[in-house]
Amino acid sequence: MVRSVHVSLFSHCFSLLRMAKDAVDTPAVADIILAGASVEESREERDIRFMRAAIREAQVAMEDGEVPVGCVFVDRESGKVIGRGGNNTNRTRNGTRHCEMVAIDTVIELYGPTVLQRCRLYVTLEPCIMCAAALLQVGLAEVVFGAPNTRFGGCGGVFSV
Amino acid sequence: MVRSVHVSLFSHCFSLLRMAKDAVDTPAVADIILAGASVEESREERDIRFMRAAIREAQVAMEDGEVPVGCVFVDRESGKVIGRGGNNTNRTRNGTRHCEMVAIDTVIELYGPTVLQRCRLYVTLEPCIMCAAALLQVGLAEVVFGAPNTRFGGCGGVFSV
Ligand SMILES: [Zn+2]
Ligand SMILES: [Zn+2]
Repeated sequence: MVRSVHVSLFSHCFSLLRMAKDAVDTPAVADIILAGASVEESREERDIRFMRAAIREAQVAMEDGEVPVGCVFVDRESGKVIGRGGNNTNRTRNGTRHCEMVAIDTVIELYGPTVLQRCRLYVTLEPCIMCAAALLQVGLAEVVFGAPNTRFGGCGGVFSV
Repeated sequence: MVRSVHVSLFSHCFSLLRMAKDAVDTPAVADIILAGASVEESREERDIRFMRAAIREAQVAMEDGEVPVGCVFVDRESGKVIGRGGNNTNRTRNGTRHCEMVAIDTVIELYGPTVLQRCRLYVTLEPCIMCAAALLQVGLAEVVFGAPNTRFGGCGGVFSV
């Protein structure tokens, strides 16, 4: 699993998470996401675009009374979002329903398991140990995360899987 | 999380797993499990009784075309099995549906999350890193496992969570 975190995106996402109630995700951003990548888009611009989609999932989760963590899976071949998820631990009362587990289940139900091997995950918070191990299980290609998870990080914050 | 593994049970379970096709789980064993603990039952006898219930789940999974791993959750207060699960990765094509995740979901759906804090898990194979972290997430009290998981163990086989 390739792991990447971009410092500018990192601080961007971290501050967005802290100000989550300020509705950072505007209709304009949604338009940009729907329009897809322009030819000139840099890797960092692309990552910010998809991380904003993940942040939107975190906001939806928060509005539903959840811890605001969200993610999207992007098919690296098509460049499209093929799955998304927000934290769902409070509503289900199931502490294992982190956004990554929710989104993994959704992608597999819709497309089967092999597509995950060519996906990049954008997640607003560094995956915990459970989720990092789950992402390894399904053969995910790449992870980009926003804020580091100092308590339960599984992608380097505490140890590397 | 208290972790315990009993050497005699360990080798017992390990050989049972290797001979899983030999139908180790007889009706007589089922009767013993249903009858519950006798007053004189030792801890080891009790653990073997519940591990046999876990092995039965592994056999059911195997008959359904799965990797034969199974588990049961036992409420330490009542001494009853309150949840069970077999590996479900092949049928769902979802590599995260290990027996522990299946059983956690079942118990929470039936009884809510807090009961897990007084449960002991019997699982035929040492939980992997993902499942060990999930069991920590839900606050499980105790784990008894059969065979060690040398590849992906999360309870001491590779490292301790
Ligand atoms: Zn997680
Ligand atoms: Zn597992």
